[in-house]
Amino acid sequence: MRATLYGGPGDITVGERPDPRLENPTDAIVRVTLGCVCGSDLWYYRGVNPHALGPIGHEFIGVVEQVGADVTTLRPGDLVVAPFTFCDGTCANCAAGWTGNCLNGGSFGNHGIDGGQGEYVRAPYADATLVKVPAGSYSDTTLKSLLALSDVMCTGHHAAASAGVKARDTVAVVGDGAVGLCAVIAARRLGAERIIALSRNPVRQALARAFGATDIIAERGDDATKLIMDMTGGIGVDAALECVGTGQSMATAFGIARVGAIVGAVGVPHDAVVPIQTVIFRNVGLRGGVAPARRYIPELLDDVLTGRINPGLVFDYETELDSINDAYNAMLERRATKSLVRIGA
Amino acid sequence: MRATLYGGPGDITVGERPDPRLENPTDAIVRVTLGCVCGSDLWYYRGVNPHALGPIGHEFIGVVEQVGADVTTLRPGDLVVAPFTFCDGTCANCAAGWTGNCLNGGSFGNHGIDGGQGEYVRAPYADATLVKVPAGSYSDTTLKSLLALSDVMCTGHHAAASAGVKARDTVAVVGDGAVGLCAVIAARRLGAERIIALSRNPVRQALARAFGATDIIAERGDDATKLIMDMTGGIGVDAALECVGTGQSMATAFGIARVGAIVGAVGVPHDAVVPIQTVIFRNVGLRGGVAPARRYIPELLDDVLTGRINPGLVFDYETELDSINDAYNAMLERRATKSLVRIGA
Repeated sequence: MRATLYGGPGDITVGERPDPRLENPTDAIVRVTLGCVCGSDLWYYRGVNPHALGPIGHEFIGVVEQVGADVTTLRPGDLVVAPFTFCDGTCANCAAGWTGNCLNGGSFGNHGIDGGQGEYVRAPYADATLVKVPAGSYSDTTLKSLLALSDVMCTGHHAAASAGVKARDTVAVVGDGAVGLCAVIAARRLGAERIIALSRNPVRQALARAFGATDIIAERGDDATKLIMDMTGGIGVDAALECVGTGQSMATAFGIARVGAIVGAVGVPHDAVVPIQTVIFRNVGLRGGVAPARRYIPELLDDVLTGRINPGLVFDYETELDSINDAYNAMLERRATKSLVRIGA
Repeated sequence: MRATLYGGPGDITVGERPDPRLENPTDAIVRVTLGCVCGSDLWYYRGVNPHALGPIGHEFIGVVEQVGADVTTLRPGDLVVAPFTFCDGTCANCAAGWTGNCLNGGSFGNHGIDGGQGEYVRAPYADATLVKVPAGSYSDTTLKSLLALSDVMCTGHHAAASAGVKARDTVAVVGDGAVGLCAVIAARRLGAERIIALSRNPVRQALARAFGATDIIAERGDDATKLIMDMTGGIGVDAALECVGTGQSMATAFGIARVGAIVGAVGVPHDAVVPIQTVIFRNVGLRGGVAPARRYIPELLDDVLTGRINPGLVFDYETELDSINDAYNAMLERRATKSLVRIGA
């Protein structure tokens, strides 16, 4: 099969890989239809973070081709959403709902497990991992939103859920990447009344507004903190969603959180420092992390299928598999918020 | 009146202060009966933290002497518990339950407000601040437990409540000071099934057991982390209560917290660093801070009066007001867990 291969920083090519085969009776083989590039893919592509060499891509939807003897809920022909991590559904962490931290799990497109930037993937623990989409004929718009459930929409939801966003809250979203934009959707979906999005990119500002942001501010750092404190009568926001992971974004999130609020953080940390004085003297909490996507997908899937949310709008660039370098470069050069890759029919 | 006065590091004396008077119609004057020394008092006594010069002591119970014209719920002769911070009960933070962060509040025994280590205190916003104890005749044991509600029992409860301790949980308490011991009481009270207390002091170990600890471990640092991970089948504890505030104690709390758990932190931070990688890659949250004591006292008061909890047992040393230096020294030299000061009848 054809698959995207990581050869080291700056080295991403499309080449040949053996077709994956059922290795365990709980496996399924999925033919990937849509994949995409994640902001976190850029970190290793740029050489900032390490990553195993070989097949990559942790987000995809596709069609089940084959199932192992013990798979009971899936059949060939089923359309499925793959969460970015696979999980056995039974370990102590999965039992507690933390499917992204499965003791026997891992990430697609890493450590030799085929990924969503290739034609076929072996999905371990297929019943526990994959989420079946009800049979039907779906528009390209809906399919893109289903793809967004693989990671970014669940991760944005995790920021909002971790911060305890509830009806009538004022919420700020720090970060206007695909995850931050999905966090706007999530905050709106959970009933937030006022959503302040931090963005200085006109395309993303427009998308944030379309997703439910009521206020857009272009300020950063201390200026952003001061402005948001002014906007909230000196009190701060009910929930601050940290979707970047840098020192500045973390400082901003803690700086604007009202007493007793929670910072919902999902950015991969790069030099982020938690201001412990703010935690203790303002009772500002911190929750978040790797999203338990498998736990969240079913409820979000319903909202995608009814059209209540449309996270697929974050895809503003697309390529075929053979041109995947364009997909990476469009994001690296910030011409794209998130790049879709069309892989199979 | 006689009151304890802070004159700078190492300089604590008992001297004369003007009797406090009603300054606002919402004030009450309280005659202090029992006060005590807090672990946090030692920080400024030792010159590590700054503190305003003048009257000190933020924990006390006493009898109402006088009330202002607008005070409606208290009358002279009422026995009251004072939370360590006063609050107006109406600001945005109080309305949200964060009485320890009142926008118009402050701490007793600081910035010239008389404190619980003196004979009389003016309590601002008396209706909102003070908690009336039902009329009755109380044993010395009960009175000591009422005094513990002023700070340490509420702070221990805040650690447990912030960490979301629930029935059947396995909980670890890092820190065997009065707050840590009260956190054991709180964890037990919230239904924890297994409570692991970290202590190497035989007196405190015994008290921790009496309060409900099921396991005591003397190890610290990496040894403690390793042992507790072994004790929990490699999974970690459902809630880690951080009641110290140092780098080591914070590292231990995060090291033993299971995926998805919350570290409930109430230690005043001294070199504590939050391991952000653990937050993100293990979904371990952090909540806690200055306890909203006024919010917690009513429910804990019921449990004290019915004898269900007995946090006054943390007082293992006592003096009269004129000998308050002995009370400080007993704690400084670790001869006492917490020192009680008998001030009035």
